Amino acid sequence: MRADFDHITIDQLRAAGGLKWTAYPDAIGMFVAEMDFGVPPPVAAVLRRAAADGALGYPTGHDLQALREATSGWLDRTTGWDVPAGRVHPLPDVLTALRQTIRHFTPDGSAVIVPTPAYMPFLTVPVAAGREVVQVPSRVDAAGRYSLDLDGIDAAFAGGARLLVLCNPWNPVGRVLDREELLAVAEVVERHGGRVFADEIHAPLVLDDRPHLPYAALDERTAAHTVTAVAASKGWNIPGLKCGQMVLSNDADAARFAPYAEDAGNPLGLLGTRAATAVYTDDGGWNAEVVEYLRAGRDLLEDLVAEHLPGAVLSHLEGTYIAWLDCAGLGLDEPAAGFFRREAGVALTDGAACGDGGAGCVRLVMATPRPILRRALKQMGAALTRRAG
Amino acid sequence: MRADFDHITIDQLRAAGGLKWTAYPDAIGMFVAEMDFGVPPPVAAVLRRAAADGALGYPTGHDLQALREATSGWLDRTTGWDVPAGRVHPLPDVLTALRQTIRHFTPDGSAVIVPTPAYMPFLTVPVAAGREVVQVPSRVDAAGRYSLDLDGIDAAFAGGARLLVLCNPWNPVGRVLDREELLAVAEVVERHGGRVFADEIHAPLVLDDRPHLPYAALDERTAAHTVTAVAASKGWNIPGLKCGQMVLSNDADAARFAPYAEDAGNPLGLLGTRAATAVYTDDGGWNAEVVEYLRAGRDLLEDLVAEHLPGAVLSHLEGTYIAWLDCAGLGLDEPAAGFFRREAGVALTDGAACGDGGAGCVRLVMATPRPILRRALKQMGAALTRRAG
Repeated sequence: MRADFDHITIDQLRAAGGLKWTAYPDAIGMFVAEMDFGVPPPVAAVLRRAAADGALGYPTGHDLQALREATSGWLDRTTGWDVPAGRVHPLPDVLTALRQTIRHFTPDGSAVIVPTPAYMPFLTVPVAAGREVVQVPSRVDAAGRYSLDLDGIDAAFAGGARLLVLCNPWNPVGRVLDREELLAVAEVVERHGGRVFADEIHAPLVLDDRPHLPYAALDERTAAHTVTAVAASKGWNIPGLKCGQMVLSNDADAARFAPYAEDAGNPLGLLGTRAATAVYTDDGGWNAEVVEYLRAGRDLLEDLVAEHLPGAVLSHLEGTYIAWLDCAGLGLDEPAAGFFRREAGVALTDGAACGDGGAGCVRLVMATPRPILRRALKQMGAALTRRAG
Repeated sequence: MRADFDHITIDQLRAAGGLKWTAYPDAIGMFVAEMDFGVPPPVAAVLRRAAADGALGYPTGHDLQALREATSGWLDRTTGWDVPAGRVHPLPDVLTALRQTIRHFTPDGSAVIVPTPAYMPFLTVPVAAGREVVQVPSRVDAAGRYSLDLDGIDAAFAGGARLLVLCNPWNPVGRVLDREELLAVAEVVERHGGRVFADEIHAPLVLDDRPHLPYAALDERTAAHTVTAVAASKGWNIPGLKCGQMVLSNDADAARFAPYAEDAGNPLGLLGTRAATAVYTDDGGWNAEVVEYLRAGRDLLEDLVAEHLPGAVLSHLEGTYIAWLDCAGLGLDEPAAGFFRREAGVALTDGAACGDGGAGCVRLVMATPRPILRRALKQMGAALTRRAG
């Protein structure tokens, strides 16, 4: 079966009331990391059953164990990473896992390294936890391909930072890091006895023909220095259900976290628990169909940028549905997101919000029906033409 | 309209899969603070709509503002407390509010005072946050009526504790504290410049003919030293949706918390946000019907205890649906919860889990259909008779 989301309309999306389609009622929304493709049937079934049963109590021990086992099974099936169910700690989301990692697995007061461009909250969550963020701008080539600045990360560890936030697949620049790159990170981390928080929430959204490699699963060193966070939020489009999983990959971390595990998991809701369990177990092929649709959309977006935005550099989207577009070559005299919002009716995220090195770029969520993608890029191109003319 | 939940069966409850009815498949479940009455129609509608729309994204600014306004309106309408919507901070639950209160409104390392018997997590959440808990056993008269030990609380503040956890209506002993008692608490707190965390999650479940008085609303002193937590979880039976509200009642607290508010609210889910908004706005009379049913159930329970458990002391349930039963007079030579679980097939919470002074008692969740309540107490009485015979 080949999924066809082409028929979904902007009116339907606005009526559903999501953030991306209501914050700017007159614009095409491409700034929130949500997909416009609805949710998998097993998720809808979880909600309908709860409504029918009138059962919205606390998650049971059975619910939580089922989620741990489903997460373990899904990781093993899709990446070959063999994680015992007991090492999976359900909690509301990846950011909660980051807060727990900072608290329990780094020294008090130590700084947190965030390679940029970064998912915006990685710049603020450590600060809210009382920590300094050390931004390390990444390298980028003329084609818009990003790579980590290992020297910069090395220097940040040498300066006293103890935790590296490693987001792979990489929101917002769309890279899927390969084994060689990940092992090079491990060398740097090991040199300093540092720790890694591996955000792998986009693991189910690799578009290129290459595997997602869980960082902690690379070797004994990475297993020993990593805390991993995953979630069904992105791959199955259920961020509002707030269910993430923190995976511990060594005995010492497991022992250290054990006294806090129940407390950390307490804010978890019932429906997210059951929905994540359902899709990790059997999503009826929904994620695979979505990935196929996104892959074709990514190819289309590359054509559309070439046609409508000559001069802009679109980073090749290896994974995630978040496209990164360098607009420096467009000759705008203002931030591109503001220009396109006002002149093209397209709402994007200003790259500057993603940290050092992001200015001049925009973050464009392309998980939308192809007709809407075409329309957005056409409007952006027309705005540029009007400006030039 | 008078609600009739009498027809709900144990088989239906087990099929719905709640914790109370699945943890002990062979017992009547009375140990989890959930009601067996389903959920209000507006909550089921929120779930069905999300399933139909396939919309499970992040809560929008509109969603959050609607919840703030609905909470403010509900507090004003039901208690006369005038809280600006901007002072309402949505977060997953009351325990999250307690963690935030400890972190932002108490000195580092200071102890937390918990009058006992207490809601069990109040004894562990501060510890997980790195704080000592000072238990202050409460006073109780021969009729099982509890009152706070103000001298004990005074001594705890004098010993360096800075925060009092004040649970009213009081889980698990069922008191609804009156104005005089609350003002006496305020005197003690003011004497030491202390703070109060007011858990008022059971405010919508007052059974006696008296008002719930929000502690922070008493006067300027209590507004200045209190952080309040409320939620729709108990009054509308939706704990699994994980949506609570922290209410700040003075400018200094509001300013201090502002930089952390977004971070604290981030783990909040979409469906809890919308469900709480719906029931605070208009629940179609569901809560009032439930309270009426619970009131009659409370009266029935008093008769049943007199009939089947002579020698036990049932605290009069002024509010909440959590009954507190002193079993010391039953002459058991083991904890009552274990005895009734094994010999009567009724699952209760051992009072010892509620802290100092709880041993010998049990916590009995009576929010169940009356036929089930009758059956449970009959089985408990029969077990005692068998033991005696």
